[in-house]
Amino acid sequence: MMGFADSRFLTRRRKLSAELAGQRIDSFLLTHPVNVRYFSGFSGSNGALLVNKDLSAKIATDGRYTMQIAAEVPDIEAEIVSTPAETLIAGVADGWRVGFDAAHMTVDGLNRLQKVCPEGVTLVPVTGVVEDIRLIKDGFEIRRLTEAADIAVGALTALIDAGELRAGRTEREIAADLEYRMRLGGAERPSFDTIVASGPNSALPHYSAGDRVLEDGDLVTIDFGAHYRGFNSDMTRTFCIGHATDFAAEIYGVVLDAQLAGVKAATPGRGLADVDKHCRDIIADAGYGEHFVHSTGHGIGLDVHEAPYARAKGVGTLEENMTLTVEPGIYVPDKGGVRIEDTVVITSGAPRIITEFPKELTVI
Amino acid sequence: MMGFADSRFLTRRRKLSAELAGQRIDSFLLTHPVNVRYFSGFSGSNGALLVNKDLSAKIATDGRYTMQIAAEVPDIEAEIVSTPAETLIAGVADGWRVGFDAAHMTVDGLNRLQKVCPEGVTLVPVTGVVEDIRLIKDGFEIRRLTEAADIAVGALTALIDAGELRAGRTEREIAADLEYRMRLGGAERPSFDTIVASGPNSALPHYSAGDRVLEDGDLVTIDFGAHYRGFNSDMTRTFCIGHATDFAAEIYGVVLDAQLAGVKAATPGRGLADVDKHCRDIIADAGYGEHFVHSTGHGIGLDVHEAPYARAKGVGTLEENMTLTVEPGIYVPDKGGVRIEDTVVITSGAPRIITEFPKELTVI
Repeated sequence: MMGFADSRFLTRRRKLSAELAGQRIDSFLLTHPVNVRYFSGFSGSNGALLVNKDLSAKIATDGRYTMQIAAEVPDIEAEIVSTPAETLIAGVADGWRVGFDAAHMTVDGLNRLQKVCPEGVTLVPVTGVVEDIRLIKDGFEIRRLTEAADIAVGALTALIDAGELRAGRTEREIAADLEYRMRLGGAERPSFDTIVASGPNSALPHYSAGDRVLEDGDLVTIDFGAHYRGFNSDMTRTFCIGHATDFAAEIYGVVLDAQLAGVKAATPGRGLADVDKHCRDIIADAGYGEHFVHSTGHGIGLDVHEAPYARAKGVGTLEENMTLTVEPGIYVPDKGGVRIEDTVVITSGAPRIITEFPKELTVI
Repeated sequence: MMGFADSRFLTRRRKLSAELAGQRIDSFLLTHPVNVRYFSGFSGSNGALLVNKDLSAKIATDGRYTMQIAAEVPDIEAEIVSTPAETLIAGVADGWRVGFDAAHMTVDGLNRLQKVCPEGVTLVPVTGVVEDIRLIKDGFEIRRLTEAADIAVGALTALIDAGELRAGRTEREIAADLEYRMRLGGAERPSFDTIVASGPNSALPHYSAGDRVLEDGDLVTIDFGAHYRGFNSDMTRTFCIGHATDFAAEIYGVVLDAQLAGVKAATPGRGLADVDKHCRDIIADAGYGEHFVHSTGHGIGLDVHEAPYARAKGVGTLEENMTLTVEPGIYVPDKGGVRIEDTVVITSGAPRIITEFPKELTVI
C-alpha cells in the first residue's frame, strides 16, 4: 500500500521524468545525497537512485544502511552493495541514454561509472533540471522549513528572555548558547557556522564568532539557522547593547526600511533583480549604497543556499511556493553594521514570513 | 620576508611540484577548499590555487575575501575575481599540461574550465597525489590535531565531572551539552554529528542522538569530535549507567583488549590490513566476530575521514607521522554495543594517543 510519504516522492519523480522526456533521456541517475533524499526519502550518506522514464525506480546503498533504507524507502526495493552508483548503471537497458547530475558528479565518479557502463548505454550530463524542480516547495517541505525556522526563533527568544545576550559575554559564548538551545529544540546541528558579530566586527558581513566581549553601545548582528530533519533555516537580527548610538539608529532604520520593502516585493511574477533593487535603492538613496556589499537573498530548503537568487543581475521571476531570504545590510568599516534577514515563502498574496521575530530597533 | 607559516606551505607545494614532475605536469590547479587551504593557508570557501613546476604560484578568490586572503597568504599575490578557477586557467602558458583534482572537480566545473582554457593548454585529471601528500602530517598539523583532541577530551571530562552524563537525561541533551562545552572550548563546530547511543541504540554503529532517556543498566556510546581551525578530532568512549550488566562487562572487556592490541600494532611498516586483523582476531576469538561490522580505523586531519584506512582488505603500510583512529566495536542487536576509539599519531616508537582519556570500564 502506498502511503502519503511515498506519494510525495513519486510526485517529485514524476516531475523529473517529465523534464527528462524533453531531453530524450531514458533514465536519470542521482548520487548527490541531498538529491537522492529529495526524490526517495533516503537520508543516508551513500546511495544512488535511478529514475526511469516509465517512473519505475531503483535504489542502492551499502550495508550500513540496510535497515534504514527499508524503513525510509518502502516503495522501492533496495540493492545493498559496496558501489551503489556503479551497480545501478551496470543494469541499465541497452541503448538507453542515462542522465546524471553534472553539478555534483565528480570527474573521478564519472570515470568509475564509465568503466562499468554497458557499451550501448550513453551517460549524459544534465545541469539545472533537479535544481529547477526543487525551486518550488511542496507542502511537506514548507512545513519542515517552518519547523526549522521555529526552532531558531525559539532559541533566540529563549536566549534573550534568559538575559544571556548582554555586555560582558563573548561572541563565542553567545553563539554556543544559541546553538545549544537550537540543539535542545530538536536541531541536528546549526545550518551554518553561527555569526555573532559585535561592535566593529558587525561591519564584516562574513565574520563568524570570536573572543570579543560585548560592550555597551555595540551593534551585535546574529545570523544563524537550525538544520532539522534535512531542512534548514536562516535568519538575522541586529541588536543594540546598552544603548543605541545615533549611528546605529540611523543605519538600523535604513536597513529595516529596505528589508520591509524587499519582503513586500517578494510576490509571484516579480523579477529577482527587482526584489534586489527594492532593497538596494532604499539603501542607496540614504547614501549607504557602497556599504551594501552583497546580494539581497537566496532560496533555502535542503540546502542553505539554493535557487532562486535575488541579485542585482538576477534573472527569472518569483513563483508561488518558492522560498527566499530577504537580508539587506549596511557595513561601515571600523564603525559597525546592521543586517536584518527573514526567510519568506512566496504565496499568491503577501509573502509568508516563517522567521517571525520582532524587527524594530531593540536595545538590550 | 618569509615567515614560518609561509615556509610550511611552500614545503607542501614543493612536495606537490615534485610529484607532478613525474607525471609530466607543468602546473596543478587546486579548487577544493580543504586542499587550497592545505597548500596555501587560505581558509575561504571559494578560491583557486595554481602551483607551477618552478614553484611559482597564483591564487584567486572573490571579493568577499579580499582582506582575508591578504592576511592568510602573504607570500602569493591574490587576484580578486568572480570566477577564481577560470581566471587562473585562462592565464596558463601555451603548451602546458595542467593537472586538476579529479576526486573533487565536478563535471560542470571541468566544462567551465574547458570553455576558457587556452587552446594549447591540456587539462589532466589527477587522482591520489594530493591525498598521498596529506597522508604524512607535519609538526603544525599534529599540533593542531592535538589541540582539537584536547578540546574534545576537555568537554567530555567536564561533562562527567559536572554529573551531566546520567540516567534521566536524553541522548540529545547529552549531545547538546557536550557540543556546547566543545564550542566554549574553542571548537567552531562538532567534527561530525555527535553520537550518543544508549541502551539498545548502542547496538547501532551509525546512530546519532535521539529522545531516548538514559536508564540504569544502559551502555552509552559517545562518539564525537571537535572541528578546530580547520582540523578535526574523533574519539569514542562507552560507559555503563548505574551498573554494568554481565553482558556489558563481557563485551566491554573484549573490545578493550582489541582496541589496546590495535593501538599497539599501529607502528611504522605495519600493514593496514594487519592493524585491522589485530583488532578483529581478538573479537572473533571471543565469539563476536560477526558483530564487529565495520573497519578498524581511518586517518584524520583537515577531513574527518581520510587516508590511511585500516580495513580487512586494506593495502599499504603505516608510516611515521600518519594519523589513525583505532575503533573496534561489538554490536549485538537489541542488547547493546560497545565501541572504544582513540586517534593516534604513528611515531618511530609506540604510537602517541592524542585522545588521552581513561578506557577501563567505567560505571557512572
